[in-house]
Amino acid sequence: MIDFKEVDRQIESTLNSSLSELGRLCAQPSIAAQGVGLTECAGLVAEMLARRAFSVQILPTAGSPVVFAVRKGRRDRTLLFYNHYDVQPPEPLELWITPPFQPDIREGKMFARGVSDDKGHLECRLAALDALLAVEGELPCNVKFLVEGEEEIGSIHLPEFVAGNAGMLSAEACIWEFGGVDHTGVPIQYAGLRGICYVELNVTTGSLDAHSGLGGSIFPNAAWRLTWALASLKGPDERILLPGFYDRIQAPSDRDLELLAGLPDVAEDYRKTYGLTGFIKGLSDELDLKREEIFSPTCTICGLTAGYQGAGSKTVLPATASAKVDFRLIPDQRPEEVLTQLRAHLDRNGFTDVQITLLGAEPPGRTDPDDPFLRMVADTAQEVYGVPQLIAPMSGGSGPNHAFIQELGVPIATAGISYPGARVHAPNENIVLDNFVAGVRHTARIVNGFAEG
Amino acid sequence: MIDFKEVDRQIESTLNSSLSELGRLCAQPSIAAQGVGLTECAGLVAEMLARRAFSVQILPTAGSPVVFAVRKGRRDRTLLFYNHYDVQPPEPLELWITPPFQPDIREGKMFARGVSDDKGHLECRLAALDALLAVEGELPCNVKFLVEGEEEIGSIHLPEFVAGNAGMLSAEACIWEFGGVDHTGVPIQYAGLRGICYVELNVTTGSLDAHSGLGGSIFPNAAWRLTWALASLKGPDERILLPGFYDRIQAPSDRDLELLAGLPDVAEDYRKTYGLTGFIKGLSDELDLKREEIFSPTCTICGLTAGYQGAGSKTVLPATASAKVDFRLIPDQRPEEVLTQLRAHLDRNGFTDVQITLLGAEPPGRTDPDDPFLRMVADTAQEVYGVPQLIAPMSGGSGPNHAFIQELGVPIATAGISYPGARVHAPNENIVLDNFVAGVRHTARIVNGFAEG
Repeated sequence: MIDFKEVDRQIESTLNSSLSELGRLCAQPSIAAQGVGLTECAGLVAEMLARRAFSVQILPTAGSPVVFAVRKGRRDRTLLFYNHYDVQPPEPLELWITPPFQPDIREGKMFARGVSDDKGHLECRLAALDALLAVEGELPCNVKFLVEGEEEIGSIHLPEFVAGNAGMLSAEACIWEFGGVDHTGVPIQYAGLRGICYVELNVTTGSLDAHSGLGGSIFPNAAWRLTWALASLKGPDERILLPGFYDRIQAPSDRDLELLAGLPDVAEDYRKTYGLTGFIKGLSDELDLKREEIFSPTCTICGLTAGYQGAGSKTVLPATASAKVDFRLIPDQRPEEVLTQLRAHLDRNGFTDVQITLLGAEPPGRTDPDDPFLRMVADTAQEVYGVPQLIAPMSGGSGPNHAFIQELGVPIATAGISYPGARVHAPNENIVLDNFVAGVRHTARIVNGFAEG
Repeated sequence: MIDFKEVDRQIESTLNSSLSELGRLCAQPSIAAQGVGLTECAGLVAEMLARRAFSVQILPTAGSPVVFAVRKGRRDRTLLFYNHYDVQPPEPLELWITPPFQPDIREGKMFARGVSDDKGHLECRLAALDALLAVEGELPCNVKFLVEGEEEIGSIHLPEFVAGNAGMLSAEACIWEFGGVDHTGVPIQYAGLRGICYVELNVTTGSLDAHSGLGGSIFPNAAWRLTWALASLKGPDERILLPGFYDRIQAPSDRDLELLAGLPDVAEDYRKTYGLTGFIKGLSDELDLKREEIFSPTCTICGLTAGYQGAGSKTVLPATASAKVDFRLIPDQRPEEVLTQLRAHLDRNGFTDVQITLLGAEPPGRTDPDDPFLRMVADTAQEVYGVPQLIAPMSGGSGPNHAFIQELGVPIATAGISYPGARVHAPNENIVLDNFVAGVRHTARIVNGFAEG
């Protein structure tokens, strides 16, 4: 039996060196969307793992390299950590209180781009292993790391990498890249992710914008074509109109609904945070709201661009227009099917002039929320946080978990250091140092619990 | 009988001083949309008129001042020139070969912001009067100038000014601010302008953009609300769906259709210039196209803005979205009625959340194309250009002519120095010096012809 008092003391005593290692990692820009600093950051991650006597490989993909590392432990069971070393662009820079790539500790928090998403989580895993190694002299089980560099741009090449390296990556369970506590400080985990199909729709009706007084009555208008094409996808009743779109949808199980009922109410928090006066589809009941939030697929306009967008008026007839649209998918929808349905629907409705560019595709993926591994993660969370962990049957967000579930057959649990105020993807991204310590303590117990399982 | 050979010699001999006066006027920025240099430019215009012994007033409005000037002539008939001293913004600056406010003469052209629209036209009127004065010692009739400073932002305060100063402005005829030749060098005039109702539509569904994975299934989305509201205004059949919108429409008369038939074909030119593969509403017949271009009201999306518009994907659910929309109106539609119809239509269709901001409103206005004044303008054009002038029964564009027609009861003719390559509102705006001379010669003949009429 490992002495967790000793492990926790070890975590506390090495906290400063963990944070300074995290600081060095965050000081290295690694912006996938802009192609900045990715190989440098992969090298830094490899170095951090090699320092812990992991066998490390930096493996090329068609995009950013993947860092893979493995170290044997006492028991021949393998736990896989999935993390990513790339970060979101830091813009708008002027809203950062301290520069995004100059990590700063103040008021019990550490601020930097990527400090929560996802470099802090990687450091959390390493700090937990450091403590176990310091106390026990060896890892309790085999540990593998897969650290990719394209998570923030849709993990474009990861599914292929996972499929092509299933043997190397084989494991009995996987800890996902994020996790933490809800807005009341209660730990929460997510037993799955919705899928996504993200497209850009482009319409070009001419080579040159025209004066609206000239062409308004006789020229095709790209902005109108786009508007009509979009309106054909979904009406004000929110029903998505692609034929076949709902065919593969799985209704939530009784257990899913039970888990949802156990989650805290969200309506009031959302109303306040986002300044909403109400929700769509006439939603008001809390359980309906929570079910709809997760177990309903979406078609969201993320952006619109056409013609004149400045102050005042300009009488222009746009020759080009574009929209960003994401579909969130639930089991067993498939992004490639949605893409096919979208093309067919547009063509059938006369919108052959609307071009589709696929910008991201991830199928949904779920783990049984009652899987013994997820239960162990919940039990060890309770030891650390002192309250029962909440389990959401799925997250509304997306990620490349489907490839891991399908190719490696692993249950996937989430655990980590984040909290709703972390401002991931936004200026002044941060972690609370106390959350970091709790996440490290939890991770150490997960590794040990897994080894004993 | 005035000796026009002598007048034309005079115009030629003073061309350099006319162009250098025009250069000084163009060197003075006067950007209505940006509030730059307007009073300075009004002062410069007043000076130019005072130098010709006009009685000049600079009159305040709620916006830019109006310059009004009058000089008596031999016969007690009054011709009113309407011009404007404001110009479009010069942006994008990097596309100008020479700086927009440093007029440059090269290759038989003069380049500057406003050199065609509309400072060159003002200089054209003055150069014509200079020549008449030099030859005759007096003006053949009374001449008034109304030079406003808000034409490029919809002449917001001009109709009120005209209505409030109808006595001062009284005249028997009016020469509008633009005119010139078509792409084959044939002079053309326009016997009217369509009206306009330009609005911005804004939707706000929350105080903060949300992550599309979070809010996609339950939050209202401003971009969707805007899309649906727009789609309710007009469908792919191009029929505008505001109840009552078409009620006041006057069909073109047989004479209008005859005039249209006399205009050059446009389809091939438009296809090439604007890179079009075809026209809307199945239009292919040339006469149909020309009729539709002018005698059909429009609803044009001039711009769309919402959410993320950069490269690649960002999973954001926009809390705000907006569109610029212009309605071009034909007799007897009224912008204030269209605005009321728009509000009522949106409300009736559940879009009470769509805010409307009026950015410009001008009723349509027409002069009988067979009015003797317009005929005289056409006849004198033939003397100068050597070919019969074309008469378009109306222009597809808009302007504040309705106030002049209604309040002053004047016929309005167009005449001037422009051509289709003038790049008005765009970088490298220019006039062809030969067109300038022709426009001055034509204007001198118009003033004389009017005095004799």
